[in-house]
Order: sequence, then C-alpha cells, then structure tokens
Amino acid sequence: MKLQVKDMEIETGGPLVATINKNDAEKMDLHPLDRAKIIKGKKIETVVLNISETGAIVPEGKIGLCEEVMNSLKLKVGDHIRLVPTKKPLSLEYIKKKLDGFRLSKKEIDQIVWDIVHNKLSDIELTYFVAACYSHELDIRETTLLTKAMSRFGDILRIKRYPILDKHCVGGVCGNRTTMLIVPIVAACGVTIPKTSSRSITSPAGTADTMEVLANVSFSIKKMKKIVERTNACIVWGGALNLAPADDKIIRVERPLAIDAKSQLLASVMAKKASVSATHLLVDIPAGKGSKIGSMKKALSLKKDFEDLAKNLGIKIKVIITDGREPIGNGIGPALEARDVLWTLRNDKMTPLDLKRKSLMMAGLMLEMAGKAAKGGGYYLAKKTLESGKAYKKMVEIIKMQEGKIIKPENIPLGQLSWDVRAKKTGIIKEINNITIARIARVAGAPQDKGAGIYLYKHIGDKVKKGEKVFTIYAYHKSKLDYAKELFRKLDGVCIG
Amino acid sequence: MKLQVKDMEIETGGPLVATINKNDAEKMDLHPLDRAKIIKGKKIETVVLNISETGAIVPEGKIGLCEEVMNSLKLKVGDHIRLVPTKKPLSLEYIKKKLDGFRLSKKEIDQIVWDIVHNKLSDIELTYFVAACYSHELDIRETTLLTKAMSRFGDILRIKRYPILDKHCVGGVCGNRTTMLIVPIVAACGVTIPKTSSRSITSPAGTADTMEVLANVSFSIKKMKKIVERTNACIVWGGALNLAPADDKIIRVERPLAIDAKSQLLASVMAKKASVSATHLLVDIPAGKGSKIGSMKKALSLKKDFEDLAKNLGIKIKVIITDGREPIGNGIGPALEARDVLWTLRNDKMTPLDLKRKSLMMAGLMLEMAGKAAKGGGYYLAKKTLESGKAYKKMVEIIKMQEGKIIKPENIPLGQLSWDVRAKKTGIIKEINNITIARIARVAGAPQDKGAGIYLYKHIGDKVKKGEKVFTIYAYHKSKLDYAKELFRKLDGVCIG
Repeated sequence: MKLQVKDMEIETGGPLVATINKNDAEKMDLHPLDRAKIIKGKKIETVVLNISETGAIVPEGKIGLCEEVMNSLKLKVGDHIRLVPTKKPLSLEYIKKKLDGFRLSKKEIDQIVWDIVHNKLSDIELTYFVAACYSHELDIRETTLLTKAMSRFGDILRIKRYPILDKHCVGGVCGNRTTMLIVPIVAACGVTIPKTSSRSITSPAGTADTMEVLANVSFSIKKMKKIVERTNACIVWGGALNLAPADDKIIRVERPLAIDAKSQLLASVMAKKASVSATHLLVDIPAGKGSKIGSMKKALSLKKDFEDLAKNLGIKIKVIITDGREPIGNGIGPALEARDVLWTLRNDKMTPLDLKRKSLMMAGLMLEMAGKAAKGGGYYLAKKTLESGKAYKKMVEIIKMQEGKIIKPENIPLGQLSWDVRAKKTGIIKEINNITIARIARVAGAPQDKGAGIYLYKHIGDKVKKGEKVFTIYAYHKSKLDYAKELFRKLDGVCIG
Repeated sequence: MKLQVKDMEIETGGPLVATINKNDAEKMDLHPLDRAKIIKGKKIETVVLNISETGAIVPEGKIGLCEEVMNSLKLKVGDHIRLVPTKKPLSLEYIKKKLDGFRLSKKEIDQIVWDIVHNKLSDIELTYFVAACYSHELDIRETTLLTKAMSRFGDILRIKRYPILDKHCVGGVCGNRTTMLIVPIVAACGVTIPKTSSRSITSPAGTADTMEVLANVSFSIKKMKKIVERTNACIVWGGALNLAPADDKIIRVERPLAIDAKSQLLASVMAKKASVSATHLLVDIPAGKGSKIGSMKKALSLKKDFEDLAKNLGIKIKVIITDGREPIGNGIGPALEARDVLWTLRNDKMTPLDLKRKSLMMAGLMLEMAGKAAKGGGYYLAKKTLESGKAYKKMVEIIKMQEGKIIKPENIPLGQLSWDVRAKKTGIIKEINNITIARIARVAGAPQDKGAGIYLYKHIGDKVKKGEKVFTIYAYHKSKLDYAKELFRKLDGVCIG
C-alpha cells in the first residue's frame, strides 16, 4: 500500500515505530504491534505498527513516522512510501519457548540478543523475555551463552596484552570508591586495567560520576584504547561506549517492576568484562545489614555463580566477600568521594583509613593474580606503590589523558550550604545504615549536584561525645537541604548506643 | 517544576504519557516510565514519563503531552503546568508478587484490574502481569476473583428477569453461526437472552460481523437494554459496550506473543457473561483436528474449568463438546453466513442441515435449562419454534429494533467475482480443514469485504464426481481472488479419497 509520510516528531529510542490509520490497517488486516516494511526506493526499514483510531492524528492514506525512520530512509514530509506487511522476528518464538519453561539453544539466544541490540523487539516483547528469564531462571549453560552473545553483539576493546585485569563490585555500599585507588596502583605496577564504570542509578554516586569531578569520562572506544595503551589504564563511563549494548535495553524494562533476574544480572556484568577482553577479574561482594546482599548464605551463592560463569568464559576470577554494613570512606557524593580519593593518593592526613585499607587489600590481590607479587605479597607491593607517590603520579597521567586538570583535594568545590548532625548523647556509634545515608545524600542533591552529599566524621565502633559532629550534609539548594534534614529526622539508621 | 505545554499530537489509547527533556528529568531525578502528576489549576492527571534525549523533540522547560492529557486538563499549547513526581501504582507490587509465584488476595486482584481499566499501567507493566499469570497459572480462587473484578469494573446490564440465558463458543470452526438461530428460537419461547458477540480476530467472520449484514450491532448499554426488554433478546457487538473492559487491554499485550493464559481466558469469557447478568450458560467446545481444541483430553479439561468457575460465580452451566473437524453450514464470510441463517429461519430448501441440526440441539438444551421444556423435550420445542416460522418472526423483530431492514436471503449482495473449485477425481470428501478454509476466505477479503468468502457444496463424507463443484470463492477485488486461488493451490486441507 502507498502512503504519504507525516513526521510524528517522536524519537522512540527503541524499536522503530510507524502509525497508520485504522481504516488502512483494516484493509491490510494489520493490528497494533504487527510488523511491516517501509520501502523507499532501494531502502527498507522494518517498523512496529501503531494504529490511529481517529483521523485527527494520522488520516487515511498517511503514515506517521518516528525520527529514527525519517532519518534512516532520508524521508521528508509529503514523500510517498510503500508499506508491506512482514513477519514477526524469529526471536518471538524463542521467547515464547522460554516463557513455556524450555531451555534455549545457542542459536535461539543469539537471535534474541541480536534482535534486542538491533531494536527489533517492542517493549512488550522484550518484557516477555525478561519475565521468562525471571520465572524460569537460566541455567549456567544458558547464562554463559547469553553472556557471550551480549558481548559479541557490541563493540569489543582489543588490546594485545596479557594479562588484562578488571574488577567489579556488586554495590550497595556508600562511598566505597576503591576503583579510583586500585586502578592507579595496579597500573603503576605495569599491569593493564581498562576500567569501565557505571553512573549511579539508585546510589549517591557511581565511579563514573566521581571520576567526572576530576576528568572527562565519555570517550569512544578508539580513544579509550589510546588512553589504556599510553597509561595501562583508564576510568571511563561504560554508558558512553557500545559494550554489550543489549544490557541497557534490558535494564530499561526491568526498572518499572525492579525486576532483577539473577542469571541475567550475572550475564550483564560478565559481558562487560568480556567486552574489554579481561583475562583476570576480582569481584567484591559487600554483605551484611543495609547492603544489597543481606546474608552470608546469599553472598556465598552469588560467589559460586560468578565463579562458575567466569570458568565457562575462560576468565580467571577471585571473589571476595567484604563487610557491607556501613559506608567505606568519609565522603558520600561525587565531589566528596573524589576528595577522599585524592587525599588517599597524596598520602594526606585526611586519608580515610578504611578506604585505604580495603583498596590496598584488593589491589594486592589483583597484583598477585597478575603475577606481580607472590601470594601474600600483593598488599605490601600495593602499599609501597601508594605511599611512594607512584600511584598518585599514575592517576595524574590518567586524569591528563582523560582531559582533566589537576586539582588539590581541598579545592574541589562542595555545596555552599551545609548542616551538621551532632550526637545527642555520649556513647559508641552502633549503626550507620547505607540505605539511610544514601537516601539523605540523594535528597540533598547527589549525584546530579556534584558537590552535594554527606561527609562522615565517625564510623561504626567509634566513640562520640554529646554535641560532637557525626556527619555534615552538603547541598546547593535550600529546599533540598531542608528535605534532607527532614528525612534524617524521620529515618532510622544512624544510632549511638 | 513548572513546564510549558507542547502538543505531541499522539493518542496513546492506553496509559497517559508525557515527555520531558533529559536535563529536566535529571534535575528531578526522574527516569523513563516513572510516574508524575500534571497539575493545572485544580485539575490533576497522573502520567507515565518519556524522556527526550535531544532538545529537538522536547526542549528544556517544555513538556510534550498526548491528546488524552491535553483534552482532560483542557490545555492549550504554551500553557504552563506543574509537574510533581509521584509514586507508582500499588498494583505493581502485586504484579511482582505474582511474578514471584505467590497467590494474590481479593484486594490485590481488585487493585490490579482497577489500574488496568483506568489505564494506570504502562504496556511493560501490563505485560509483566500477563507473563506472571502465564508462568504461575491462577488457581480457581484467583480466577474467580479476577472474573468478578473484571466484570465489576465495567458496565453491567441490569434486567429484572429470571432466568437470563447466554451461550458461548470457544471458536475455531468456520461458519458455525448457531447464535443467530439459537437467539431467535429461545427468545420466541419467551426466554430472555441478551447476546453480545465479538467481531472476528483471526476467523473469516464473527457473529457481530455477520449480524451487521442484517442490522446495526453497535449500541449503548441503555439502548441494548431497551431492545432486550422489548424482544427478549439482542445480537450486538460486545466491543461497542463497556463490559469487562480490562479484557481488551489484556488481549492487546497478549497478541505479540500469542500468549493465552488459560485462567485469564476463562476469566475474560465469564466476566462478559457476568456483565449481562446471565444466570444460565451453554458453552460449546468444538474439538478435533483443525479446530482450536485438538484432543478430547484438552476439551474435557477445559469443560471442567468452565464448570468450576461458573459454580463459583453462581452461574448454572452446561458444557458440550462438539465435532470441530469441518465447517458448520455452507457459507463462510459475513454475507454468506447471514444468507445461511435467513434460509434456515425461513425454512428454505437451501437450509444447511448441519447448521440447523446443531442449532436446534443447542437451543433445545437451553430451553431445558430455562425450564421451558422437560429433559429431552427441548429439541422438539426448538424444532417446532423454528419450523412454525415463530423464530423467523422473532428475528424480524430483533432486526427492526436493531435498525436493520428486512432483506430476502437471495438478495444479500456477494462479491461480484467468483471462482469454482472442482473435484479432480470421483470419490468421497475426506477433509475440509477449518484452518485452510479460514485462510482462503480471509485472503479473499472476509470479514472486511462483507460479501467475500467461500460457499461449500460438500461436507466430509459426501460423494463427489470428477468435475463437480466442491466450493466457490467470492471476492470483490481481482488481486484478492488471485491470491486466494494461489493459496488454495499451495495449501493442503481439502481432500478427496
């Protein structure tokens, strides 16, 4: 059927969409969400159909197109195109199969991931896939296949070096900016570590948000390669790259119901590691009250899942379970965390010792994995590298390569408004709950307001006198600071016994 | 946040949608598919958010609204509104619970159905509900609760009579237009039967499509009530009414994967019956090769499900399993089926005897259920009512009340193009497969082209001579007839042994 183009002025960001009039749809026996090909000259795009019930939006004889189709077929308003019904993507059959509880083959998983990456599936169809994987957990064979497919159908960082190190933390602990210490320590010892990190989704800061206080974090894969080849390392935002792109599309439909299908989560994480060609991986699972992994049983089960999957992928792995009951470091929020990192690298007296200790322990393990230190000797090599100033020097190199400028930690700008929380009685700090701290820091403005957040003077077990400062909230806007104060008064989670 | 209105010129037909710029979204910590309230004076609407990645579609400071929101808040382009983040609907928690395999309570099911009916759920969220019900089949208690909720959150036809009869066929058999014979027979015997029917989705004609050849089928519930009070009956399109409206919204997201969650299907059917206040119900399950229900085991299991659910709803039910291996009646397509119905009602020599026999049997059972005939006597009462012309007289009444005009069956217009399929050898008809016949009739134009379709001269078991006509295809357009011919040559399904 010939139809005249109308520009709908919509960008879908996902599957390509076209809207036709109800009467034209009836003539062609087409229904909402059916597929059709749009043909203009020798160019073809496959779209998912919407049906306009009234002529007000799309009258008979016209077709409303999203920006993506307008651009890809180089169409102008008023052009004529041919619309031809076409079959649904093959992967729908496989998604149905999984929803029916059957195991999927390599071919089937590849097809599903290919269709996701190439925007062939509508939101509804993708949601069925997520629901199917959630109801019928993928087994280790399927998870391995999914991981490989997610990595393969995206860009891959190819660096001809061995070993290539990587680290991952399952998250849930405020502060905990170990990556920004581990990367320069390990790289200063001559080990390659091309680190991609995420931005915060529900926390007050992600590593990418924090690094962004000091340098640019959005690079092409070509530029990323250059940085790594020059400095052994980088700390960039994974979202700016096209590594395992199926992941972001899946996360989008998981969000509304806060679904996290375990096997899919594992596949997402490991696919990103495979995409930077990592050969050795250290995984940190913080566990305990107030963290993501509440019990040791859960932590051990997740540890085993990581180990099994890494083995199948040929990645050498070490998984550690750490104390996730309270924030690590003093600053919470991008600028406050960046300040902690710089103080530590510069061996300043303001260094948060818990952050330093944990980072050295992890960097040590990674140096042992990389063969740079004997078993048990990694910690000392890491400590020497940090305290000699070599790690700071390496960080300066990385920041410069990433188009940042060197700034003293004291000069990092914070929110100009602040409010101190003081102890109501003398005693010992019994709890500083991550969930509570994260909510207050976010309400104060983190991570969007870089200098907003919380600075902790105390950790669990510390003595505190009545009237002494426990933490300070920083913000740029009075309304946000007021809301953060109000929230602190309402929430439990910081307690002195 | 204050934003200026932009009209997106989109109608969603589902949940209300608003699009804001990425930068505004970041400021408010909003993500795609989050909920927000749009406030204009004293009016409020809750919307699901889209995020525009570039300023080209929705620049900072603006908000793009769908037609439904523009109209409901009486907004004009350039107006200012206030946008306030709000919580997700309660039902999301319950949908997640079901997806996790737990049973749902009355309160939870009510909330989910209410949110579906009031367009509070996005496609993704609704899809999770369907997937959850598919993976974790609702039990009979949940199915009953779902049925009641679907019926309650919609219009209800209230007629102060007892009994009120209804019938239902699970479909899959071409022709089989028994409803249009049963309704006038039963109504002529003084029994109330307010029949709502569907249009075809995948078949060559639904009862609503066929009745539309003779009369109007789209009425308000008020007008429907008037018709039933005057004539004891009606044959109207359920889609024009607001009976159990959750159903249509669920079907929309089931379509892409051809999901049919059994318990949900049962709930949909029974909710429509509850919505017309039916007290007695006859269900026809055609079974056998080429029908929807392939095996007797499946048919018996479905029968039991209907019986259990009806019992819980307080509806007296009778379920029959009939022969679904071939079309019932000779005409296939709206006009051709309407002609069969009129011939039968007028006791014409062209009456298809299989259709007459099945309709009398079913009408007889319903008359027995209604207490109008003793057990075993219903068939004879139905036969007398039909052959005496009383049923035809009743149909004339109904057609007139439904704004139709009385037409002779011979004068019903058919497609002016036709093509005869003739036997290639002498023998006995072994198979006339419903799926094959339905596909050919649809390709010829049915149900959109009312007079298109197939007319059968033979049924299974009939003798046929070489060169004798087996069926004729009717169409309005040469291209459609050609495609139907081509399809007939390619498909198996009509065979002579």
